[in-house]
Amino acid sequence: MINDLFASGFSPLLIVLSGTAGAGKDSVIRRMRERDVPFEFVVTATSRPPRPGEKNGQDYLFLSVGEFQAMIRNNELLEHAVVYNQHKGIPKKPVLAALSSGRDVLLRVDVQGAATIRQQYPQAVTVFLCASSQEELTRRLLRRGADSADQVALRLRTALEEMNRVPEFDYRVINADGGLDEAVDAMTAILRAEHSRAVPRKAIA
Amino acid sequence: MINDLFASGFSPLLIVLSGTAGAGKDSVIRRMRERDVPFEFVVTATSRPPRPGEKNGQDYLFLSVGEFQAMIRNNELLEHAVVYNQHKGIPKKPVLAALSSGRDVLLRVDVQGAATIRQQYPQAVTVFLCASSQEELTRRLLRRGADSADQVALRLRTALEEMNRVPEFDYRVINADGGLDEAVDAMTAILRAEHSRAVPRKAIA
Repeated sequence: MINDLFASGFSPLLIVLSGTAGAGKDSVIRRMRERDVPFEFVVTATSRPPRPGEKNGQDYLFLSVGEFQAMIRNNELLEHAVVYNQHKGIPKKPVLAALSSGRDVLLRVDVQGAATIRQQYPQAVTVFLCASSQEELTRRLLRRGADSADQVALRLRTALEEMNRVPEFDYRVINADGGLDEAVDAMTAILRAEHSRAVPRKAIA
Repeated sequence: MINDLFASGFSPLLIVLSGTAGAGKDSVIRRMRERDVPFEFVVTATSRPPRPGEKNGQDYLFLSVGEFQAMIRNNELLEHAVVYNQHKGIPKKPVLAALSSGRDVLLRVDVQGAATIRQQYPQAVTVFLCASSQEELTRRLLRRGADSADQVALRLRTALEEMNRVPEFDYRVINADGGLDEAVDAMTAILRAEHSRAVPRKAIA
């Protein structure tokens, strides 16, 4: 019917927030939730032990190596990889469940994980978050403190290599020091614009 | 240099706001300007006489038929057409001047004009504005009052045919009665998201 031409149905999105270490992915997601941006955040499963303050099921899904390997065997992961000697991956079930209930899903994944998800789901909306300069990025990686100098150097080298992969993404959002709200504004604008596409991206679930 | 990877240069956009008669394109543009959304609005040139309250150079560029034909001859129009027996077209020079000075340009054109501009500049960002239902659209066309019943019927028929062309556009924005601010929110989100593209659209000027 003609009114179908007017009605704008809601097509839930799979949004992949990626970017280098030190880009501030967690801060952006936290602020988006504080602002009640409507989306389902599906946490990454990992075999690494929790860092101080990290909550199971909220920051990560902390699994034993055995549990993780069982998920791999049962094909229960959207993507998985060994990063810095630890298993990491996105559980498939909560992603598909949220999408099929009509909710946007946001994933936080590293640059390689984003590439894997894009291969499986080219209709995913992929965002590369980054610091505003190399100096800023270096400062942030140093500030973490938990890592050794060697680890910082490795993370920085990896981050700079990853910056070359920005063009593989749909969007690039700068998260400058003091500019968290601006980064979150950009994220919400991206979600809104994507929901205004004349031809929605292909449904996933 | 590596910091070029971080810096997000501003690539000015050519934004085409189109849609059916009665969609509310003028109201959306007016509200965008009231909100100081930064863009250059390039007015359409027309050979029709001004309606009451319309200002030359602000609502339209009012030209004589002779002046209009001279612009056509000199290739000074981005697109032009005869609509309802009147010449209508977009002057090229102010569009290119604003873009090359680094400002986004917004054009208000009908659906056929949008198609012409898209052919010349596939990198234009095209938005189809529409009412939320056929009933709402009919009410708005009737409310104008200036048109005869025949004219209203023709405009409605044209509008419904144009709705089939939504998929040619990048975005579709609903401008429901009482929902002007929501439509303007969507427009500003689209601009912001487009400026966050990892790979900017190709430059025009």
